Amino acid sequence: MWPDKRLMDMLGITCPIIQAPMAGADSPQLAAAVSAQGGLGSLGCALRSADQIAAAVRDVRNVTDQPFNLNFFCHQPPPHDVGQDGRWLARLAPYYDELGVALPSELSAGRDAFDAELCDLVCELAPAVVSFHFGLPPAPLVARVRAAGCRILSSATTPAEAVWLVEHGVDAVIAQGVEAGGHRGVFASSWQHGSGQIGTLALVPQVADAVDVPVIAAGGIADGRGIAASFALGASGVQIGTAFLRCPESAVSPLHRAALDRAQADATVLTNVFTGRPARSIANRMTRELGPIDLDAPSFPRAAAASLPLRLAAEAAGSGDFSSLWAGQAAALARVVPAAELVRWLAEDARMRIARA
Amino acid sequence: MWPDKRLMDMLGITCPIIQAPMAGADSPQLAAAVSAQGGLGSLGCALRSADQIAAAVRDVRNVTDQPFNLNFFCHQPPPHDVGQDGRWLARLAPYYDELGVALPSELSAGRDAFDAELCDLVCELAPAVVSFHFGLPPAPLVARVRAAGCRILSSATTPAEAVWLVEHGVDAVIAQGVEAGGHRGVFASSWQHGSGQIGTLALVPQVADAVDVPVIAAGGIADGRGIAASFALGASGVQIGTAFLRCPESAVSPLHRAALDRAQADATVLTNVFTGRPARSIANRMTRELGPIDLDAPSFPRAAAASLPLRLAAEAAGSGDFSSLWAGQAAALARVVPAAELVRWLAEDARMRIARA
Repeated sequence: MWPDKRLMDMLGITCPIIQAPMAGADSPQLAAAVSAQGGLGSLGCALRSADQIAAAVRDVRNVTDQPFNLNFFCHQPPPHDVGQDGRWLARLAPYYDELGVALPSELSAGRDAFDAELCDLVCELAPAVVSFHFGLPPAPLVARVRAAGCRILSSATTPAEAVWLVEHGVDAVIAQGVEAGGHRGVFASSWQHGSGQIGTLALVPQVADAVDVPVIAAGGIADGRGIAASFALGASGVQIGTAFLRCPESAVSPLHRAALDRAQADATVLTNVFTGRPARSIANRMTRELGPIDLDAPSFPRAAAASLPLRLAAEAAGSGDFSSLWAGQAAALARVVPAAELVRWLAEDARMRIARA
Repeated sequence: MWPDKRLMDMLGITCPIIQAPMAGADSPQLAAAVSAQGGLGSLGCALRSADQIAAAVRDVRNVTDQPFNLNFFCHQPPPHDVGQDGRWLARLAPYYDELGVALPSELSAGRDAFDAELCDLVCELAPAVVSFHFGLPPAPLVARVRAAGCRILSSATTPAEAVWLVEHGVDAVIAQGVEAGGHRGVFASSWQHGSGQIGTLALVPQVADAVDVPVIAAGGIADGRGIAASFALGASGVQIGTAFLRCPESAVSPLHRAALDRAQADATVLTNVFTGRPARSIANRMTRELGPIDLDAPSFPRAAAASLPLRLAAEAAGSGDFSSLWAGQAAALARVVPAAELVRWLAEDARMRIARA
């Protein structure tokens, strides 16, 4: 029924649809529903403690024994640049004033990258699949994850990044086009100009030509047409985020959910002002007044510590002005249904489109 | 053999591939070869005089009696803002100095938009197809083109632009994704942030859902995979530029051709510094030092008058530092062969991919 089964065979899934990990907005219920339906559910672990990761994995395994994916960020922690932090906080000071929030005197280091401790946990939990964002962790950690029996994925935003990932041990490459919501996986190319980032339709075939492993298309896919197109481009599967974010099982905030309901195709921009790294969000006051790209923002993830108090205060007042409203460019295509039904519909719609051709 | 024949039937072509008009770089030889092969050849007329347009049409008709397309820009001529022109010229003055070129005291108005005189010519020449870029000309001119028996196309960069075009009389919509080389057709949405522009994979299905006329996918397509994917997304045909730019029949400069030969997928940016409108070019010194986007650049096409002397002087010295090196994100996918062979290969490759699915 599917024109390319390489990814399905490799990951032990019956439907070539990966629910994208969405740190802070996915849930064990969402991942379990996708995996139980034959796709690959994912848990974004970047904002979860070790205990929370273990608990979420238990929750998934209570529902299904099918493969699922744990995702980790593996950025290089940036140097603590007090001057840069201070300049950015000064820039944000008027907003802190306006919202009546005390300006922090310094920024916390923020979320941790994948390290030996998290690697211990992964080896103990032994999920079928581990995916990384922002490149790969150091080689010894990659080797340990592999030795634990996990398949390893990571995202490439250029053909050159895809080649690097394969040389460093991934089993499949996620070709993340510019349409994708949330953080871009970019790790070895420049991102200062969003318009240099490559669209999914142009990226997937060029990545497929550059590597021998299965390619997973990501970015702008939210119905069977996008899936059928991805296979035509040379992909062996797809990763879909925004459409799953709209499922009732996701942990997205009501405010973010309402913004997704309204989001037209041109509602989003790539911005670094929320976290320090480029990510696609629905444009709002924060991206308009501070960005969407400002190279003065502290490096990821330090900028997130600067924007979080604003977000919390604004959201408490019912405003998404300072919220990272992650969304891809195909939010409007998604059907808003429970995750199992979404997987079924996506697969049926895709197979119908493929068969019709 | 093709899953959707609506566009082919409407335009009277046997292969659903349109060679994109590329003002300044296409040629009658290129257009004729594409049309003779069953596709739709195009002549970009924005930089051609009325006499040159008539001569080019004669040249095409000497080779083939098949349908071809004449393309016109229909921008609103900008007000003459002496202050803005002067500030931009001051910004460029160091480059004029460096290249030993006299700084102009003012900017010429630049190329004309489609007007009554050009409309007279089009009605006389009566090509099978007329396409517009940057929206549509005034309604009375559209009506005259239609009355002359021409099918009318224009480009949309958002679903809302597509709806507007259909309401104003186009027979088919070109859904131009962010991957596309050259000028973006954007006319009713903002473009200050290139990352807000929509990728082809996300745009085509959303445009197909928004309008009832055939949709032509454009942007990032340079082989059969992109064509097969476009049909899967709901398109009835494709428009391809960069791949045809690399044909021996194109009138691209040797310097531009060499840059295309080297262009990787992430080599390009959207920039307005060459002409005042956003367009995708291979990044070079001009886009790096002045852009890629600078909202101080005079409105299209006045900025082109400011960059042209720099371009000519630099090119005379063998440098492309100041040349608009228009290119899409899939330049590296294109086969460099004569245009007839390219059309044959694209069609065969696409049909093979569609049949395989």
